[in-house]
Amino acid sequence: RLSDLLEPLHAADIADVLEQIGPAERRELLTLWSAGIDGEILSEISDSIREEVIEHLPPEVIAEAVRELDTDDVVDILEDLEEQQQEAILGALDRADRVAVEQAMAYPEYSAGRLMQREVVVAPIHWTVGETIDFLRRSEELPDQFYHVILVDPRMKPQGYVTLGRLLSSRREVRLADIEEESFRTIRATIEESEVAYIFNQYHLISCPVVDENDRLVGIITIDDAMNVLDEEHEEDILRLAGVGDESSLSDGPVATARQRLPWLVANLFTASLSALVISGFEATIAQLVTLAALMPIVASTGGIAGTQSLAVAVRALATRNLTSANAPRVVRRELMAGLLNGLGLALILGLAGFVIFGDPLLGAVLGMAMICNQVVAALGGVLVPLGLNRLGLDPALASGTFVTTLTDVMGFFVFLGLATLVLT
Amino acid sequence: RLSDLLEPLHAADIADVLEQIGPAERRELLTLWSAGIDGEILSEISDSIREEVIEHLPPEVIAEAVRELDTDDVVDILEDLEEQQQEAILGALDRADRVAVEQAMAYPEYSAGRLMQREVVVAPIHWTVGETIDFLRRSEELPDQFYHVILVDPRMKPQGYVTLGRLLSSRREVRLADIEEESFRTIRATIEESEVAYIFNQYHLISCPVVDENDRLVGIITIDDAMNVLDEEHEEDILRLAGVGDESSLSDGPVATARQRLPWLVANLFTASLSALVISGFEATIAQLVTLAALMPIVASTGGIAGTQSLAVAVRALATRNLTSANAPRVVRRELMAGLLNGLGLALILGLAGFVIFGDPLLGAVLGMAMICNQVVAALGGVLVPLGLNRLGLDPALASGTFVTTLTDVMGFFVFLGLATLVLT
Ligand SMILES: [Mg+2]
Ligand SMILES: [Mg+2]
Ligand SMILES: [Mg+2]
Ligand SMILES: [Mg+2]
Ligand SMILES: [Mg+2]
Ligand SMILES: [Mg+2]
Ligand SMILES: [Mg+2]
Ligand SMILES: [Mg+2]
Ligand SMILES: [Mg+2]
Ligand SMILES: [Mg+2]
Ligand SMILES: [Mg+2]
Ligand SMILES: [Mg+2]
Ligand SMILES: [Mg+2]
Repeated sequence: RLSDLLEPLHAADIADVLEQIGPAERRELLTLWSAGIDGEILSEISDSIREEVIEHLPPEVIAEAVRELDTDDVVDILEDLEEQQQEAILGALDRADRVAVEQAMAYPEYSAGRLMQREVVVAPIHWTVGETIDFLRRSEELPDQFYHVILVDPRMKPQGYVTLGRLLSSRREVRLADIEEESFRTIRATIEESEVAYIFNQYHLISCPVVDENDRLVGIITIDDAMNVLDEEHEEDILRLAGVGDESSLSDGPVATARQRLPWLVANLFTASLSALVISGFEATIAQLVTLAALMPIVASTGGIAGTQSLAVAVRALATRNLTSANAPRVVRRELMAGLLNGLGLALILGLAGFVIFGDPLLGAVLGMAMICNQVVAALGGVLVPLGLNRLGLDPALASGTFVTTLTDVMGFFVFLGLATLVLT
Repeated sequence: RLSDLLEPLHAADIADVLEQIGPAERRELLTLWSAGIDGEILSEISDSIREEVIEHLPPEVIAEAVRELDTDDVVDILEDLEEQQQEAILGALDRADRVAVEQAMAYPEYSAGRLMQREVVVAPIHWTVGETIDFLRRSEELPDQFYHVILVDPRMKPQGYVTLGRLLSSRREVRLADIEEESFRTIRATIEESEVAYIFNQYHLISCPVVDENDRLVGIITIDDAMNVLDEEHEEDILRLAGVGDESSLSDGPVATARQRLPWLVANLFTASLSALVISGFEATIAQLVTLAALMPIVASTGGIAGTQSLAVAVRALATRNLTSANAPRVVRRELMAGLLNGLGLALILGLAGFVIFGDPLLGAVLGMAMICNQVVAALGGVLVPLGLNRLGLDPALASGTFVTTLTDVMGFFVFLGLATLVLT
């Protein structure tokens, strides 16, 4: 009955089922249905529960599963396992695959070398269409999915590629060199995977050959894996901006979840103490006019929103490489002006409201002035902090959220209470 | 000289150059180099400046440019133009393309129908490999890029598909029906584009046939366009979470930028006034113990961080469909528990610090208790708000940021000052 339910599903959907049920049900399902777990399912399962799943499977099921996979998927599974489990899986592979997997594992984590599969289709650049088709018909072991034939020279350096569509629609005597695609690029095995995702997205690639430091072909990356990286980079950005560790997963328990989030909360405790320190410097002013305590969060929190807006735009633009050193000065100027404009608009509303509600034009003026200053600081901070982190080679999404909101809180309280002390007391 | 610089670049890179330079330089470049702008470049240019670019090009350049494009790219360009410009472009197309473009435009914005191209390669399901290859060799007008042959019945209903790799490596007499791919799916033209991106990503598709309400083939969507949608959906999420209109673009000027961001800032002015109202209700307490004014932002802002964390995780999980009705109860329970744990941890630190610094164990206890309450509220609010919006068919990223931080601000101030009033005065 379990098989009837699960078997018609795509491996990716079965993996989702395994991820979404609780740990106890997962153990039960794996016990009842371990024979149903194949390589596809194993490679679709999220990193966070894969180790748990593998521990529950008999060694022969795992061996069988990994043998059917392309080497990139074996590498993806291997990466996160303990050494002992790694040995078991490597032992199950045939020699050529094992060598390819070990070669890929020798490249740094999150590099192109870890994403590539060894299953490639190449042809000498001097072949004709007919020779190539005959070769393909004779081949015993073609990849499950391939969309190009890579043209190589005698030293296995990629020279270009031919789409299968061109190959199929050309006459047998045509030379491959005459129907190769106009634009051709290769990827170095050592570049970062985020760079790989960018290249695929920017140039609409379907697959791309990977070369070593001598420009020799070592594998190929396909778009489905690049798309996956793009999606993970998104996840990283959105979670890091919010101060969540990017190792977090929906299947984590409460303790793991709490532990992932605590560091930023504790960091915020310290940064918020800065705000408290600033405010306590003005206790005499507040004692004289307690209404200030009620009004001060308005200036601070509106600054926080503006900083977050500017920050999100900058982090996203850096991720897509739309924000570069070429247009950074223009974007910073734009943020400054936009901050000033919105500061003026908000100051008008808030100043008027302050005057109407409290009948004190000076209080309105203080609110308005503080708002303008803090909006400008927020807009500038939101773009300069990620630009600065990026310049330093750090992730612009990391820590910038806390930094920017601390900035706008501290500035908001300081300017508002400072002006109030000068003007109102 | 300009041509020497730009011509070797990929169309996507030329589009980036056009986006990153200022408006005045852009006008100049277009005047000097209008003949260099081809269809590829036009379709790579971001929506935000495309209208401006098109206005600066002579009609014959535009006509020439759109004629070389696949119909999906023509639709993408057409969508954002004024009716007059649309007419001009439609007039430049040959009849078959024009009909296909008009058919696509008849589907709702952001639907699969808008993403599909009419350039497809089909074969009757009863054909052999040899018949298909002969047909492809005879075809005058094959798409630039295609990776599958779609098998159709006599009424043009897709029945399956064959990869070009299988076609090439199979013998001429083999029937197409015998080498079709195991898993095959079609997409309804009316589904949303975010659904299309999900399907491509989930099932590792390279291309997918699009069918009308009678299950007849109307076009095909390719992965590069699905990857583009995935990227845009992410942009939408990250910007909406931060309260920025998703129509924003880096090439917008300061006034447009300010106008896009002002609505959320004004909304925040009102929600922050709620906090002010809560605080003003405790003015008597603050007047008695002004230190409370300095400490209260700590509880509120740490709650804001926790709410943002929980919210980012939930919004992302809803976008990837990892958070479904199947695991929502478990995730909500987990957030509750994690919030409680972190609340306890933070309460311990803050309570001790309060006691050490102010020498008042009661003040420490009030800080700690308020922290626990607000952390639980933050964690629950962060997951329940997006789940609720999603249930209502609204975008879980929209407005939830402001809502959750308002919640944690108001709760933070209320619980802290309320407890202080009860215990300390
Ligand atoms: Mg999944
Ligand atoms: Mg293999
Ligand atoms: Mg991995
Ligand atoms: Mg792969
Ligand atoms: Mg990464
Ligand atoms: Mg990144
Ligand atoms: Mg671009
Ligand atoms: Mg055409
Ligand atoms: Mg496009
Ligand atoms: Mg468009
Ligand atoms: Mg396309
Ligand atoms: Mg959309
Ligand atoms: Mg969305």
